[in-house]
Amino acid sequence: MFVYADHAATTPLKREVLDAMMPYLTEQYGNASSVYALARDAKKALEAAREDVAAALGVDRREIYFTGSGSESNNLAIKGALGALERKGKHIITSATEHHAVIHTLMRLQKCGLCELTILPVDKYGLVSPHVLRAAIKPDTVLVTIMTANNEIGTIQPIGELSKVAREHNVWFHTDAVQAAGHIPMSIENVDMLSISAHKFGGPKGVGAFYLRSGIKIPPLVDGGGHEGGLRSGTENIAGIVGLAKALKLAVDNLASNTLKVAAISKLVTQRLSEIPYSHLTGHPDMRLPGTVSFVFEAVEGESLVLGLDTRGVAASSASACSSGTLDPSHVLLAIGLPHEIAHGSLRLTFGEENTTKEAEHVVKAVSEVVAKCRAMSPLWDDDKPTERFWSESVL
Amino acid sequence: MFVYADHAATTPLKREVLDAMMPYLTEQYGNASSVYALARDAKKALEAAREDVAAALGVDRREIYFTGSGSESNNLAIKGALGALERKGKHIITSATEHHAVIHTLMRLQKCGLCELTILPVDKYGLVSPHVLRAAIKPDTVLVTIMTANNEIGTIQPIGELSKVAREHNVWFHTDAVQAAGHIPMSIENVDMLSISAHKFGGPKGVGAFYLRSGIKIPPLVDGGGHEGGLRSGTENIAGIVGLAKALKLAVDNLASNTLKVAAISKLVTQRLSEIPYSHLTGHPDMRLPGTVSFVFEAVEGESLVLGLDTRGVAASSASACSSGTLDPSHVLLAIGLPHEIAHGSLRLTFGEENTTKEAEHVVKAVSEVVAKCRAMSPLWDDDKPTERFWSESVL
Repeated sequence: MFVYADHAATTPLKREVLDAMMPYLTEQYGNASSVYALARDAKKALEAAREDVAAALGVDRREIYFTGSGSESNNLAIKGALGALERKGKHIITSATEHHAVIHTLMRLQKCGLCELTILPVDKYGLVSPHVLRAAIKPDTVLVTIMTANNEIGTIQPIGELSKVAREHNVWFHTDAVQAAGHIPMSIENVDMLSISAHKFGGPKGVGAFYLRSGIKIPPLVDGGGHEGGLRSGTENIAGIVGLAKALKLAVDNLASNTLKVAAISKLVTQRLSEIPYSHLTGHPDMRLPGTVSFVFEAVEGESLVLGLDTRGVAASSASACSSGTLDPSHVLLAIGLPHEIAHGSLRLTFGEENTTKEAEHVVKAVSEVVAKCRAMSPLWDDDKPTERFWSESVL
Repeated sequence: MFVYADHAATTPLKREVLDAMMPYLTEQYGNASSVYALARDAKKALEAAREDVAAALGVDRREIYFTGSGSESNNLAIKGALGALERKGKHIITSATEHHAVIHTLMRLQKCGLCELTILPVDKYGLVSPHVLRAAIKPDTVLVTIMTANNEIGTIQPIGELSKVAREHNVWFHTDAVQAAGHIPMSIENVDMLSISAHKFGGPKGVGAFYLRSGIKIPPLVDGGGHEGGLRSGTENIAGIVGLAKALKLAVDNLASNTLKVAAISKLVTQRLSEIPYSHLTGHPDMRLPGTVSFVFEAVEGESLVLGLDTRGVAASSASACSSGTLDPSHVLLAIGLPHEIAHGSLRLTFGEENTTKEAEHVVKAVSEVVAKCRAMSPLWDDDKPTERFWSESVL
């Protein structure tokens, strides 16, 4: 049995989405910037996709811009806010648990002297406090960027409250909604910029979208022929854009039923993994993405866990996997207060609506086996008297 | 009959290319950054694609980076050179006939005070002189960026000579090879950076590649998770990347036979359109892309020409088409010395290897008819005594 339980990394492209894309990968190959019939058809598809995305997010179609990825959208928001003629400061506020596309971007800009950075702490669940945000805003703050939902622990931030604080201070608010879009309802009343990525909700890789509230002017990241209202030049990836729009529409239209299905799987897995000794759910117990099950297992290496699961046909992820090219544990797990040695034992299982109860049972069995096997080989573990030093009630 | 004669705008996705992409749009959906088998397969495909692109360009695989478009690659080269720690100046040299992704990028940076710009003139064929380039280089020059082949008039620059001049002065040389890659042999011995775009040679839209000579360090345009050696973050568009590599390989492997075929079509069309009174081939007569046939017709509006061709089933382009959102004639045609009123009458026909002689005949007939019709309605045209003021031997 093969179980794909890494939907936060990427999702299978939905069949209906591929079907919608196929004409634009075959006979409908026109360049949307040209003037003849074939090109006008491409342009129509582009604008229909924009309408669909705008409708799914509850915004105006003129506020939607297509990009090459969620990372690009995040970079556009941050570098755009710093480069905007309207805003003169360079102070940006973010949180300690942002995706690398936000936090690494900000840290490099800070290092180059291009931005001054305040990184807000989070509580043990990964939540940012609106009060803490309010206190951090300065006269030269140009942007607050806080993710809607976390990619490692699934915690959903109180974006309504946080964005309201920013609006009250006349500071632009951006949210990286890459993990949230298509998975939870989003309230973006006071949000000025928002990033999404197609492949996180059943669409293709290589295409993202960016919401920019009407009236806000930021410079582009990619200059050129003036595509996308001058905000993102380059021949439009019509097939990808059509795929993004179709996938988002499907996800939003079926949000309630998909959430029920996925949440049931997550609940089952969470309950069963909680029964493993010295395992701890990470992230908020309720305010979390319905498909995200994130745990740490004491005296286990996340890397070994994921490789062990792979041999049992389970595709999963660990925040401490060496693919990141570093042996440091996840900044997210450290930010919620986990000690280094526990943060190393992280596992992220992220489910989609195609996962079944039977698959969930297989995953639980596999995780239990692999955790036991890893512990059996660990010098840090003693079956009879599990070492107490990993346990910290105050943290978890 | 429908004839697609706008291959410089975009090309149909080749069937073999789509076939190569399909596994990555269906069952092979893994994220190349994950560690399980499905993801390792994606990573393998990514690295195989990188090898293929490197082989096609005759460079090392570690010098190839995938991006979201040719425009992005051009922006990366320019903004990267300005942001490189190694280079401290901000003087950039370019030519007067560059693509908007280069010239608009540079002009915005200049306007913001981020770069000092020298725009080299071109001769009546659109060629940049290596001597003129040499004279323009200053101690604080950080980059020379000159396109390999022009997108409007097809002129091929002497990149070997130009890049040699830059190398002799220890200045980085970038070339926008978006129109050239897969269409002509390229010598990039002294080239430091190069941009290509998949959809210009039978690949998909939404994916480009960037060659960066080993040893050169520039900052990324999109920061984040550190994909593509840290130069371009964001989950890799595996299907698109596989498509780019396959299309480039096909194009390069079949370069000689495709060139023969396409050049024969172009020759036929060029000869026949030259017979239309007061028509002029633009660009270099020999040093030009084999598939590009570019003309100006006196006393004709390019916009009307393209729309007239559309009604006759011919997809073509005019540099003066209103899709650019401006009524100004093409900067390329002005740069080669055409007066405004003649530059307005431009037509670009760009052929691919699937075009047939029969299609070429249809195009010639359609152009002749539409030009005649436009002139019949033009206040500037008199059948008996065509106005002489448009004719300027010295220019054309």
